[in-house]
Amino acid sequence: MVSSPANVQYLSGFNGSNGLMLLAPSEAHFITDPRYAQEASETITCKVHIAKGPLALEAAKIIKRKRFKKIGFEPAWMNMAEHGRLEKALPSRVLLHPVAPFLEDLRAVKSPEEIALIRHSVNANSEAYARTMKRVRTGLRELEIAAELEFQMKVLGCEKPAFETIVAVGERTALPHAHPSLRRLQANELLLIDMGATLDGYTSDMTRVLFAGKPPKKVRDLYQAVLEAQLAGLDAVRPDIAVSQVDGAARNVLKSHKLDKQFVHSTGHGLGLEIHETPKIGKLQKGVKKKDEIKLRAGMVITIEPGAYIAGFGGVRIEDTVLVTERGCEVLTPTSKELGGVV
Amino acid sequence: MVSSPANVQYLSGFNGSNGLMLLAPSEAHFITDPRYAQEASETITCKVHIAKGPLALEAAKIIKRKRFKKIGFEPAWMNMAEHGRLEKALPSRVLLHPVAPFLEDLRAVKSPEEIALIRHSVNANSEAYARTMKRVRTGLRELEIAAELEFQMKVLGCEKPAFETIVAVGERTALPHAHPSLRRLQANELLLIDMGATLDGYTSDMTRVLFAGKPPKKVRDLYQAVLEAQLAGLDAVRPDIAVSQVDGAARNVLKSHKLDKQFVHSTGHGLGLEIHETPKIGKLQKGVKKKDEIKLRAGMVITIEPGAYIAGFGGVRIEDTVLVTERGCEVLTPTSKELGGVV
Repeated sequence: MVSSPANVQYLSGFNGSNGLMLLAPSEAHFITDPRYAQEASETITCKVHIAKGPLALEAAKIIKRKRFKKIGFEPAWMNMAEHGRLEKALPSRVLLHPVAPFLEDLRAVKSPEEIALIRHSVNANSEAYARTMKRVRTGLRELEIAAELEFQMKVLGCEKPAFETIVAVGERTALPHAHPSLRRLQANELLLIDMGATLDGYTSDMTRVLFAGKPPKKVRDLYQAVLEAQLAGLDAVRPDIAVSQVDGAARNVLKSHKLDKQFVHSTGHGLGLEIHETPKIGKLQKGVKKKDEIKLRAGMVITIEPGAYIAGFGGVRIEDTVLVTERGCEVLTPTSKELGGVV
Repeated sequence: MVSSPANVQYLSGFNGSNGLMLLAPSEAHFITDPRYAQEASETITCKVHIAKGPLALEAAKIIKRKRFKKIGFEPAWMNMAEHGRLEKALPSRVLLHPVAPFLEDLRAVKSPEEIALIRHSVNANSEAYARTMKRVRTGLRELEIAAELEFQMKVLGCEKPAFETIVAVGERTALPHAHPSLRRLQANELLLIDMGATLDGYTSDMTRVLFAGKPPKKVRDLYQAVLEAQLAGLDAVRPDIAVSQVDGAARNVLKSHKLDKQFVHSTGHGLGLEIHETPKIGKLQKGVKKKDEIKLRAGMVITIEPGAYIAGFGGVRIEDTVLVTERGCEVLTPTSKELGGVV
C-alpha cells in the first residue's frame, strides 16, 4: 500500500492531493476521490477505483475481494488514526506490516528522463531569478521581491514554488528560514534569496546573496568564507563518497574561518519530486556506523548549500542544485556565484 | 503532545514548519530545531527547547525528566514511524494515548481577533481578484492568470496562496480541481477561478465564474441554477442547524434543476488557520446518527460553494467565505456574484 503522495506520483504520474496505490505481484490498483475521476481515467494506466469516503477504506474492500493476506505499508505516511481505521475494516487474518522506505531509495537515483525534467526546473528557476533581478531596487519590500520571483516562475510555466520563497534583507538574513515580510531593502544591506520551482512535478533549489551598494570587508569576508565552503563541498561530490564526508568538506572550511558554530544546518539534501529527498548531506548521525552510511551514487541530484549566520548582523548561504556524475558532479544551476550587487 | 502544525500555531503563534508542544496542567513546552531558534526565542512565551534531532525524541527527554506518566497524542498527526520511535525512547511505564481532536473543535469557533484576521484575508483575496480582472483578456494562459492573482496577493501582504490557485477555461472548468495549464482563454469560453489567500496565518476562499463574450442560454441556465443553490445554502446558515441540512438546502436546488448528479463534492468547509477545518458542510455520513451531527455555532467561519460539472462542456462553482452570526450569517466575501464578463 503506497500512501506517500510523491511515491504515488513516481509510480503513476498522478499529481493530485488524494491518491493511494495497492501494488501486488501481478496487478496494481489506483484509488482516488470523485474530484479526480476524469483526470485519473485519462492518465492512469492501471485499474482505477473512485472512492466516496476515505481511500484506505476503499483499499480495504479491494484487499478483502482479492484475498490479499499481508499488506506492507509506509509507516512515515500512515498515521495512527488511518491505521486504526484500516485494522478495523480488515479481517483479522490480514497482516498489516510496516516496510522500510525502499521507494525513496529507488527515487534517489534519477533516470535520464527525470534528470532532463530537473534541468528544466533548475533553468526556469534561474531564469525567474534573472528576470526579477533586473527590477530589484532598494525600497522594495521582501514580500514584493518574493511575489515577483514567484510570478516569473509561473509565467515560465512552473506549477508553483517548490517551497515558500525566502527573501530576507539586512539582519534578517541571519534567519535561515525567514518568511518574507514588509521590511524594505535599504542601501548598504544584505539581500538573501532562497528559491525553488516545481515544473512538471520536479523541483529545483538555489540560494544567492546580494548587497545593496559596495560591500564592506566584514560582508566580503563572510561571503568569501561561505563560497570557499560551497566550492569545497562541490569538489567532494563524487560516487561512493559518504554523505558526511561531503558535509565535512564544507564544514571544515567554515571551521578554519571560525564560522562552524554559525553553520546551523546540514550541507544539503536530495531533491526530485520532493524538495527534500534522500540523501541528507549532513554529519554522521549518532548510532549510525560509518560503514552503514549513505554514499553518493551517479544519478543522484542534491543541493550543496553551506551558510553562516551572525545574529543581529546577517547571514550568507550559497546553494546550487547538483547532479552526481560518474566522475564527480555537474553543477546544474547556471546562475553566477559572485557576490551580486543591487543597482 | 501537540503535533498538528495548525494546532501548534493556534496555541503558540509559531508558523514555522517544525514545531511540537507538550502541554501539562501547569506548564507548557515548545520544541523546534536550530533553524527557528532566534524566531522562537523572540515570540514564544512558554519554555523553548531547541532539538538537534527529531522533535519527538526531545519531547521524550522532557517527559522522562518531568516524570509525566500519560501522554495524549493526536492520532491523525502522529505517523506509525514516529509512534514507534517515541515508544522506544520512553520507559514502559509511560502510556501513549490517542485523544480525540478537541483542539480542532475549539478552533472551529473563532474569537473576534481571529474573525478580524479572516476579514483581512478575505478582503485581500477579493482585492487581488479585482486587480487581476482588470487585466484579464482572451489569449492569456491559465497559468498567467494564476500567476497574476498570486502576485497581487503577495503584493497585498499575503504570505502565500491558501491553496494552489485554480484557473480553468473552457471544458476544463468541469474539473473541480484543475491545475492551471498552458491552455489559453478563448472567446466564448467559461473561465473559473478558485482562489484563497493566507494573511497573518489566516485563510480565505472564493470561487467566481466568468464568460468571455455573451454567454449562451446553456451557460446562463447552469450559472443561474448554481447561484440559486448557493443562495439557498447561505439562507440556511444559522446557529444550531445541522451541517447536512445546509448541504441539503443547496443540493435540493440542484436536484430541482436535474443537476444533483453533477454536484460531486460537499457544499463547504470550515476555514481558519487551515483552508479545510471542521465542520465539513456535507451529506449526513453513514454511521452518524442525526442527533450526533455537527451543528453550526455563531463564530464559525465556513464556505458555501455548490457547483455543477458537465464533462466535455464545462462547470460552474460559486463560493463565498461566510461568518455564522447569532441570527444567521454574514457573507464576508465582497465580490459580486453576477456572471462576470471578460472584456
